[in-house]
Amino acid sequence: MHSYSEIIQLFEQFFSGHQFPAEPSNLYEPCSYLLNMGGKRIRPVLCLMSHELFAELNQNAFHTATAIELFHNFTLMHDDIMDKAPLRRGFTTVHEKYGLPNAILSGDVMNIFSYVHLNKIHTEYIHSVIDLFNQTAIEICEGQQLDMNFESEKYVSVNDYMQMITLKTSVLLGASMKLGAMLGGATTGCSELLYKFGQTMGLAFQMKDDYLDAYGSSAKTGKQMGGDILSNKKTFLQAKAFEIADNQQQAQLLQLIQRNDDEKVQDTLIFFEELNIRQQLEDEILKYTEAAFDLLEKVPVISKRKVHLNELAHMLLNRES
Amino acid sequence: MHSYSEIIQLFEQFFSGHQFPAEPSNLYEPCSYLLNMGGKRIRPVLCLMSHELFAELNQNAFHTATAIELFHNFTLMHDDIMDKAPLRRGFTTVHEKYGLPNAILSGDVMNIFSYVHLNKIHTEYIHSVIDLFNQTAIEICEGQQLDMNFESEKYVSVNDYMQMITLKTSVLLGASMKLGAMLGGATTGCSELLYKFGQTMGLAFQMKDDYLDAYGSSAKTGKQMGGDILSNKKTFLQAKAFEIADNQQQAQLLQLIQRNDDEKVQDTLIFFEELNIRQQLEDEILKYTEAAFDLLEKVPVISKRKVHLNELAHMLLNRES
Repeated sequence: MHSYSEIIQLFEQFFSGHQFPAEPSNLYEPCSYLLNMGGKRIRPVLCLMSHELFAELNQNAFHTATAIELFHNFTLMHDDIMDKAPLRRGFTTVHEKYGLPNAILSGDVMNIFSYVHLNKIHTEYIHSVIDLFNQTAIEICEGQQLDMNFESEKYVSVNDYMQMITLKTSVLLGASMKLGAMLGGATTGCSELLYKFGQTMGLAFQMKDDYLDAYGSSAKTGKQMGGDILSNKKTFLQAKAFEIADNQQQAQLLQLIQRNDDEKVQDTLIFFEELNIRQQLEDEILKYTEAAFDLLEKVPVISKRKVHLNELAHMLLNRES
Repeated sequence: MHSYSEIIQLFEQFFSGHQFPAEPSNLYEPCSYLLNMGGKRIRPVLCLMSHELFAELNQNAFHTATAIELFHNFTLMHDDIMDKAPLRRGFTTVHEKYGLPNAILSGDVMNIFSYVHLNKIHTEYIHSVIDLFNQTAIEICEGQQLDMNFESEKYVSVNDYMQMITLKTSVLLGASMKLGAMLGGATTGCSELLYKFGQTMGLAFQMKDDYLDAYGSSAKTGKQMGGDILSNKKTFLQAKAFEIADNQQQAQLLQLIQRNDDEKVQDTLIFFEELNIRQQLEDEILKYTEAAFDLLEKVPVISKRKVHLNELAHMLLNRES
């Protein structure tokens, strides 16, 4: 059993031992550039921790964790193009630095390298692992599509918003847990419980993201406060506000969205306060957080083995940045 | 044993039985749109014909053929973005019709669907099939990278040109043959011979493409004659001309490349004629074509079984469009 900091170290060691080929350098450099921006490696760590609930870490688990991290980064590279994002984690995005064609092609090859790692898994597990991986990968594309569709909508319902973040974000956390468990020899019921734990935590995690963007400390998040409001991103806050607003308030919110002045963020936050939206988001995050911990509690493994996973979940869900 | 027209019918039947999901429609519509543009389905047909040299067609072969066709179309969708191509097979390209973000995302999901099909292959073959598929997919990305790198070069050597078309085009024809053979139970030596046959035919095929662009009949190819010359594309003709030209002729060719007038194509063709380039390309195509047929001849299977494959190869290499 390893702590978060120990597991991340083990993962980085394995990960850096599997470099991309040297040539053509302008194909592989953008891949290394993105992967070296850092990031918390949450998904591979969840996979490895889930695996350790049942068995000692082995090559199957490390290759799967690597495939997950590569896939995740491939989606980031392509999403940044689609979202026209200039920055990621404070660094220039790949398409801004290396150009659009290379961001497409380097992303494509990174995706294929996920399958290079998946194909190293022991035959016993390969069908079920690739099956869940593919299904999750497809759902993530579908989630990104829904997110893009939102851009042409004035507003979206809370249900639609939840469906989008379920697909775009939470299923990969669920799959990371389930894949680790499956490879550790967990029963179907058990690995399904861990999928739901990961997925539920993923929803709380994404809603916390929305929360921090509006109410977090800019000094801690390193992001511009209210960035989502400024760019009219569809968030839980906006969806919920539309849901409970009366006709007059809806018109007011539509006006706020169309504004582009310096007080836009401040006035929107005041509007949210009038509808008590901040509290409702806090309640929702708490609801999903508690549900996640309940699911973890139900996993039929002695509590001692779940300590590190519990700690990691607390860290992710109570973060301030 | 089936003829080309029979096999293409069997393939289309299987292929159309595996549709994409209905929703989100704007994710999957671009996939169907591209796949329905037609095309000769050469790669899946090669895979199935190669399989039939050794065994009766089965689900393993059809799923692999489908994966190959999906992968090929995914690369077309993304290549068209990178090449800023407005048309493919006479139709508006996906990114022109559905927008850049969708051409990226629909391509991504189509790539993942290749692996959905590969994962349906019997466990006995799965590692070796996915291994060759991944390796080929990586090489194709590397080939596209080399091709893009060529854009910033004044000219390229014949060697560099051959390396690029080897990766970008010919390895997939080789892999299609080898995958079919492997799944049919061919020996390693035998499937390796068929890989080389496919690859060599792929080189002849691509050089024939260059030939038809310059010397084909516009009425038959449906393309603008000399399109490659007009857009300064790196072809065998241009690479060979630079290779054998003296200093003065090289300067002349560089001037031709910089021109943009109505006589550019005609004058370039006259220049090629002076250096006898057309003949050299014909010789080269013949050399690779003969090498391909020699390889097929060596495959230790009775000649009768190779009739349809021979016919298809003749059709591909002697085509006028």
